[in-house]
Parts: sequence; C-alpha cells; structure tokens
Amino acid sequence: MDNKIIFLIQCADRRGILSSTTTFFSDLGFNILHCQQHTDAREGRYFMRIELDLADLPSTRSDLEKRFARFAEEHRLTWRCHWGDYRSRVAILVSKTSHCLYDLLFHVSEGDLFCDIPLIISNHPDLESVADQFRIPYYHLPVTKETREEQEAEILRLLDRFDIDLVVLARYMQILSPSFTDTWHGRIINIHHAFLPAFQGANPYLQAYERGVKMIGATAHYATEELDRGPIIEQDVIRVSHELDPSGLKNLGKDVERRVLTKAVSAHLESRVIIYRNRTIVFGPIV
Amino acid sequence: MDNKIIFLIQCADRRGILSSTTTFFSDLGFNILHCQQHTDAREGRYFMRIELDLADLPSTRSDLEKRFARFAEEHRLTWRCHWGDYRSRVAILVSKTSHCLYDLLFHVSEGDLFCDIPLIISNHPDLESVADQFRIPYYHLPVTKETREEQEAEILRLLDRFDIDLVVLARYMQILSPSFTDTWHGRIINIHHAFLPAFQGANPYLQAYERGVKMIGATAHYATEELDRGPIIEQDVIRVSHELDPSGLKNLGKDVERRVLTKAVSAHLESRVIIYRNRTIVFGPIV
Amino acid sequence: MDNKIIFLIQCADRRGILSSTTTFFSDLGFNILHCQQHTDAREGRYFMRIELDLADLPSTRSDLEKRFARFAEEHRLTWRCHWGDYRSRVAILVSKTSHCLYDLLFHVSEGDLFCDIPLIISNHPDLESVADQFRIPYYHLPVTKETREEQEAEILRLLDRFDIDLVVLARYMQILSPSFTDTWHGRIINIHHAFLPAFQGANPYLQAYERGVKMIGATAHYATEELDRGPIIEQDVIRVSHELDPSGLKNLGKDVERRVLTKAVSAHLESRVIIYRNRTIVFGPIV
Amino acid sequence: MDNKIIFLIQCADRRGILSSTTTFFSDLGFNILHCQQHTDAREGRYFMRIELDLADLPSTRSDLEKRFARFAEEHRLTWRCHWGDYRSRVAILVSKTSHCLYDLLFHVSEGDLFCDIPLIISNHPDLESVADQFRIPYYHLPVTKETREEQEAEILRLLDRFDIDLVVLARYMQILSPSFTDTWHGRIINIHHAFLPAFQGANPYLQAYERGVKMIGATAHYATEELDRGPIIEQDVIRVSHELDPSGLKNLGKDVERRVLTKAVSAHLESRVIIYRNRTIVFGPIV
Repeated sequence: MDNKIIFLIQCADRRGILSSTTTFFSDLGFNILHCQQHTDAREGRYFMRIELDLADLPSTRSDLEKRFARFAEEHRLTWRCHWGDYRSRVAILVSKTSHCLYDLLFHVSEGDLFCDIPLIISNHPDLESVADQFRIPYYHLPVTKETREEQEAEILRLLDRFDIDLVVLARYMQILSPSFTDTWHGRIINIHHAFLPAFQGANPYLQAYERGVKMIGATAHYATEELDRGPIIEQDVIRVSHELDPSGLKNLGKDVERRVLTKAVSAHLESRVIIYRNRTIVFGPIV
Repeated sequence: MDNKIIFLIQCADRRGILSSTTTFFSDLGFNILHCQQHTDAREGRYFMRIELDLADLPSTRSDLEKRFARFAEEHRLTWRCHWGDYRSRVAILVSKTSHCLYDLLFHVSEGDLFCDIPLIISNHPDLESVADQFRIPYYHLPVTKETREEQEAEILRLLDRFDIDLVVLARYMQILSPSFTDTWHGRIINIHHAFLPAFQGANPYLQAYERGVKMIGATAHYATEELDRGPIIEQDVIRVSHELDPSGLKNLGKDVERRVLTKAVSAHLESRVIIYRNRTIVFGPIV
Repeated sequence: MDNKIIFLIQCADRRGILSSTTTFFSDLGFNILHCQQHTDAREGRYFMRIELDLADLPSTRSDLEKRFARFAEEHRLTWRCHWGDYRSRVAILVSKTSHCLYDLLFHVSEGDLFCDIPLIISNHPDLESVADQFRIPYYHLPVTKETREEQEAEILRLLDRFDIDLVVLARYMQILSPSFTDTWHGRIINIHHAFLPAFQGANPYLQAYERGVKMIGATAHYATEELDRGPIIEQDVIRVSHELDPSGLKNLGKDVERRVLTKAVSAHLESRVIIYRNRTIVFGPIV
Repeated sequence: MDNKIIFLIQCADRRGILSSTTTFFSDLGFNILHCQQHTDAREGRYFMRIELDLADLPSTRSDLEKRFARFAEEHRLTWRCHWGDYRSRVAILVSKTSHCLYDLLFHVSEGDLFCDIPLIISNHPDLESVADQFRIPYYHLPVTKETREEQEAEILRLLDRFDIDLVVLARYMQILSPSFTDTWHGRIINIHHAFLPAFQGANPYLQAYERGVKMIGATAHYATEELDRGPIIEQDVIRVSHELDPSGLKNLGKDVERRVLTKAVSAHLESRVIIYRNRTIVFGPIV
C-alpha cells in the first residue's frame, strides 16, 4: 500500500470517461499500476478505482489534489484520494465477546491491516485484558437507558480527540443514534452475526436453529440509522447440520464473523469500497 | 441402495434405545451396515437411521415389518422401513424454466437418482420437448384463477393414477392448496430460488441486487401450507459481486438451484431425511 | 454477448498503454462498456480485455480490425478481436461417461453457452443416444494402439470440415498427439478429474481415497503436449469424508467435474481468458 | 466436553459389534450420548466413537477401564478412553511466523480449544513477545546442522518434563528425526501450507503461482517420517486469481493455514480422530 496513491471515483456513466481520466494521469507522467471499473448500466452509474505509483508524484500532494479537483469538477466526478502511506486511525468498539477484536488486533500486528488502533472502547470491562495484551488504551464507558446519550457523546469526544478515521463495531451490542450514524456515514463498519437479510435482530443463532437452516453466515456492513440495513461489504457462510444446537451454531459462527469483519475492514482500509445508494462496489484485492 | 433395508426411527430420547434396537436386528442375524443417530438434547428427541443388508433377511419382508412393528410399539418408536430395491415413483411439476428439470432427468438417467419418473406435469407447454428428449409423458394442465381448483384436482388424480410417492416442484410457479400440501406432507420437495429465510416470495434476485448481497443461494424444502416456510432439506450459496445485475444473478443462481434441488431429492430417495417439527435431520450420504 | 466487440490484448508493461488504448477507441466514438486489466509486475507483462458496443461500429468490421492492427503494431501489442454475435463452433469429444457432455449440451440449449455444437466425436458408441436427444451428429471413431494415428487424422479432418473453433474433451480418455495439441494450442479444453497438480494421471479417486484427502476437486485446463500440465482455466473442490470409498468419491466428483468444465468453456467462449506462458488470466464474468 | 467419557474403538468388521458394545455400556447404566460409526467395507474395518455421560459412572474410572479392557480383549478391539474433564497438555513449536500460533492461543483463551499450553518452543527468538502476551513460557532453542541432534534431544526433554500429550507444529520449519516422529506417532500435528499432495516441500505458494492454480489450500496432518505424507486430518482451500503474486497468495493462504490447523487440533483434542494405516477417520463435531 504505502507506495501507492489511490483514487476512488464515481459519476454518471458516459463516453470517454475512462480515456480522459487515464489520460489525465498519464499526462502527469504517472504509471497507472491498476485500474478497476464498474458500470452499473441499470443505474447509468460509473465507478472507478485507480492505483498510481507514489514515486511518480510530479509535484506536491496538495497540488495533485488541486489539479484533479479541477478535472473532476469539469467532468462532474465524485472522488476521494487516498495516500497509501497514511495509516488510518481505527477505533474498535466492543462489548463482551472477544473473537472479532482478537482477529482485528492479530491482523494489525501481522501487518495485514495497515492502520493504527489508538483506542478500544467498550460498555463492559471484560475485554480490558485483551487490550492490555496488545498495549492499547481501553476506555470502559458503561451505559444504561438513562446514560445512553452522554455515553455516546463521550464516545464521539474520544473519536474526535484521537483523530479517528474509521469505527469498527466488533460485536458492540449497543445501537448507535441516527445522528451518530449520519455523522459517521460510511465510516462505521458493523459485523452482524447472521447472513443478512435473514435473521435480523437478536439471537440469530437460535432463530437459525429453530428454522433448521443448513448454513449459517455473517455479514459486515456500514452502519446506518436502520439497524442491520446498511450497505453490505462482505458476507460468508459455513455449512452446518442438525448436530448443532444454538450454542454450537454460535461457536461455529464466531469464525465466520471474525473472518468476514476483518475482510471488510481490510477492503475499506485499502480503499477498495465505493458506496452507492444502499449498496457497495467492492473491488477485488490486488497483489 | 438396492441391496439394503433402511429403517428411519424417531422417539423420545431415553437410555438403552440404541442398544436394544441394534440388538433386535443382530438377534435376527442382520449385519448392521451403517447406523447413524442424532440426539436433540434440547428437544429430548432421538433419531436413528439403520442400514441392513437385504441378503440377511431371515424370513419375509412383511414378517420383518410385523416383528419390528411389535418392537416399535413396545418401545414407542415412530418408524418407517424403506426397501432399497424399491424404485420410488416421482412426479416432476414444472412451469417454464428447464434447468432444474434437466438436472433431475440427467441424474436419473445417470443412475445417481434411484427412481422412476412416470410423468411430468406443467401449467405451460414450454418444456414438452425436454420431456420428449427423455421419453417421459408430459401433461400440460393450464391454470387460471378460475380453474385452479379443478386443475389441482386433475394433478391429484394423476399422482394417484400413476402411484406417485414423491412430488418435486422443479420451479413450478404455482401455489398449492393447503389440502394438497397436507395430504402430501413430507412428500413434496420444492426449490426456492433464494437462501431462505431471506428474500421470501417473488423475484428474490431483484431483491438480492437491490440489497447488494455478496452471496446468493437456493433452498430445497418440503412444501407446507405456509409458502417458503417448510422444513429445509438442503441449501447452498455462491459468491457474487456488484458486477452482476438481477438477470446476471438469476443466471448464476440457476446452477445453485439445480444442485440444491437434486441433492435434496437424492437425500429423500435414499431415506436420509427425518422430519421433526419444522426441521429436518439429514443424515450424510455413505459409500 | 451478441451486441459486443471484445478485444483481448497483451504486451510488455509500460506507461500510458491504458490511456492510449482507451483513447484509440474513444476517438472512434466507441463507448467502452467494460475494461479489465491485469499487470503482472513480476513478469512485467500487461493484459487487457475491452468490451465495446457493437452499435458504435463507425465503419466496417475489417476496417476496425485494420485500424487496430496498425495501432497494435505501433504499440507492439499482441491482440485478438472477438465479434460477440459470432457463434463459436465447438466439437465435443467423449468416451463413455456422459455427465460432462450432458452439462455442456444442457447449457447450450439453455442459452448459457453461446455456441453451436456441430458434432460429437467418441471412441465408443455409448453416448450416441445422448447426442440423439439433442439432435447432434455423433461420430463413432473407435481407436486401438494400431489405429491411433489414422483415428486422430480422421478427427482432425472432421474438425476442419465442420469449421471448428474449439475442441472440448469432456472426459475423452485418449491422449492426443503433440502435433494435435500444438496445432490446436489454446483451443482444446480438457477436464481433469482431480485437483491438479495433485493426483495426475489415472484413477485419481482411488489415489484420493488411499491418501485420505478431505476434499476432492476437478481442473479444467488447455490441453498441451505434457499430459495434465497445460494452463489451468478453472478449478473447484468439494468436501469429502472417510465415509466415501473410491466409487463414492467418483460419484461426488462428477458434479464438480461438469461444473468446472462448463465454467471453463463459458470463460473461453466469452473471451475472458488470456494465456501467458503456462498460466491463464481469467477475467471475471460481467452482467 | 468436561462431563463426557469418550471411547474410540476400532476392530475387524463383523456382525453384532455395535449391539454388543452399546449393550456393554447400557448394562452398566450408561446413557450413550452419541455414537458414531464407520465401516470401511473395502478394508473390512470397523470404527466407532462413543460418548458417555460422566455422571453415569457406576464405580471408579480405573474400574470402568478394567472392565472395558476385558470386553475389548474378548472382542479383539483396539481402543482408547478419553476422560472429557482431562485438559490435554499441548506444546506448540514455531519458527518465525505467528499467524498459526496466534490462532491457537486465541482459541485456547476463548475456551474453544480445551487444553493447556505449558510451553512454546522455537528455533528463533522472534515470537517470544506473542508468548508473553499470553503469559506462556517460551523456550528458544536455536538449531544448526551441527546441533540438530542435541536441540531435538532438548525438545524431547522439555516435552517429557512438561508432561506433554500433543505437539503442534505451528509453522515450525524444521524436520523432525524419524525417531522423534515414531515415538510421538499420532501425537504430532503439522500444518502444511499447501493442499497436499500438491506442492509438497518448500515454497508452495511460488509453485502455485507458477502453475497458475485457481485455488490454494492448506493441510493439517499427523507428522510421520516421510515429510508431508502423514495421515491428513483436515484440509481447506480458498479461491485465488491471477491478480495475486506469490506473496499475495502467501498472505491469503495464512488464513486458510490457521483455520485448518486449529480445526485439526480441535478434532484431536475432542477425540474425534482415529488413525488407520495412512488415513484418518474424523468424526464430525457434535453440539
């Protein structure tokens, strides 16, 4: 990542957009490392991800952004530029279960997730020891019906104070307020412990057992006001049988949950995700 | 299959049931080829599938069934005996799409599905040529709101006349009446072109597209009065991406649908399925 | 497919290739429906697939090809142009097992595989009835060690006479001569009933059983002189257990084989495959 | 697990074995929680796993074992009894890569793997910090060609001193001597970072890249004298594309490796694995 510049672009679909965009960068002397596109003919919408070589940067970063801003305005592009050597700052919110948290921290220490974790926030004290294991500050902010608002305000203050770019709800069992999800739209990733849209809401593993499904899954999505209805980033399933009771399903499900969440966070950190309406375009990983 | 006797048994869970049952068969000189069990501790329910060697049959078939009936009554077992050399008689109901029909007929001619297909019934003429390809009588019974009852009555007459054991709804786009599904409870297999319980009802692929899911699936289940809510026999999924529009999803989905339906029919024909409440116990295939 | 023009391009990787190529087509007034690229940095090799809208064709087909040929020479591109409305002519070679043949014919009649099947060739008479089912001429060319050469010559004559573009070995259990595989390089697809490179050669299911593997798979690849070593197009696996003996594995494997072969043929027919050295770049399906 | 008694049994296949064995336990007043069997007709071999309720234990543990030993001798059974409340003692051997180690330690702390990890042994100092994170003694035993023998002797002393039941090679890049693998036969689990039997030996990801495979996998097996040839316990794969170079494949492969290794260790710890010849019978997980 750290030697790359990534542009995420979307616009109304029309002729010549690919040619003019790639020419823009070529004329600046850039080698286009990778270019991925998607045309949604139904929606008449065009999406593009461009990877440039940071070494080709002709002048300053702000200068490139200014030039592209002019080009984008002219061609009416919505865009975002991501400098690959910038380490995103991620806050992880948890409650009591550690499997997703462990997996994220593990992948960060492995260098698979290119980001910093300045803090972990939880409404329970249970996972402080895990935070300690990885030497990450742990903020225990208990919450009750009465204190919900001020607790959320405290969370927001922390996100602000620590300059957070992305919030990951790693089995954080609290519902965020609409104002929270709006402010952080497209910057909160949640893991739902079911294959959405099936089994929305609580205790999906009991629902799955009672329905006698033959596969269970997990879904990572951007959090929105509507619980469990935000844009899906990643999903996966695992085959199950009648042998498993709800707790057995839950145990098996944990591996899918953490795998799916980590994959979604990775896609976001590598700027491979574009949100359009309530859907995502997720470009495949490269190298 | 054709050299086997299969017993499917269920009862309230209690001590000694496995020992006494296996001893019953051993004392008759049977070699137990395979014995699969499942205990649902939550429900206090016990399920068993026993494969015997037909060659060991000590007396007549009816004699064995009588003896076991006595044993079962004594131990309060619900049971079913399946003689492996009996070819089940299966009626396939279709509408206009052929992929599931083809897959079933293909597996029958391959000998993978041990059954006879005495007839195919459809509310449309479209698939008669497929029936002809496999030299199977094709009954075209068109249906309208007005004629629904008599058309269903005609279907029931055909099932009766052809001595049908199992009805397979291979993308038959009509809803059967409660009296039909009741009479044929546990003997009608339907394929739903979605990963239930998500996307129930019509056009699930459009729903899937609009929801932006990353996997689509199919579900084979026993038809019951409640549409799409019967006991699930088999499910599978396939990974999809934003590249696919609803028709693209539909096309990809066809392979999952036929695979899942054929797998479910195969499990039923090999007497590997026990229904309990709204769930199934599906014992794994052997040899 | 049939309203598209597809260009498959490869060349040494260098700056500006994407920009100049897309500009070439834009300047001719083409709307680029889709553009997929791959850069193999290790090999310094660049690969591109471009889908154009046939409706945008400014002059004649040969004129477009001439213009692009000039452009390609100038930029030292290796390329192939595929007119989407052209139905490729595919010959299927089989021996005695029908599952792959059935699946191919089924998908052709479903319209999933956009091609014609002018003939089926076999060294055994067994599958003539399947050919009849789909009204396709069946050529039975028996072969012995002594007659191998002339039988192969006869096959080549048929391929020539029927103007064949692609040869599919759907479980054709004969080895083709090097001169055959050379002449038809990149135009013969073979299905190997194992997850290559494991279990090369005969009876992989027995090998798999004896090795006690937990998954079996199948591999579709372009046939080359070296048996089972040609460029892989598609692979898939299925989970198996100790419950299955070699014939059980073989039966289960059939579904993987036909799925994998059909997927590979589909990728080839949609011009989504580029061969480089002994590898393939397979661009994902779209729409 | 901890309220269960598990018997693993194998013997030459013959009539009545299931009946007599289950009767043996029933007569002692045991409720048979689960009973799984497998008959390998090809080998004329019978395998059984029985789960009993520890609460039903009529007398002492040694008394039960003595009684069963007599029964087993009489019926010529090979058997092993596992007391579910016994925490196996597992030594983990590593070199420099941490992903498998992390996953094992994570699952132990989650309670998913019912065992103790008294020590971690490595030929490199790199992973001491991980061991510290989980407060587990870390023994750094560097090795050179010259010191191989004494280093291995030191390892054996540690295994003995810490009363180890199972050795897990979590990407330990050293080859163990035949005498080591013999002494510990069936008690050393190794993870091979490829889908065996493909890509045996070093750098399978480079081999996979050069061969252009479309899936990569990992294999967990019992270590034997012949490198990478021991009985396979678990395998899994992940789909890959031409987009990935060897290091990309390696990165993706890590998730499969750790998943497969943990699954294999779990099957071993739950006494679900029986070794026969160079194969395993792995009974499915329950509850």
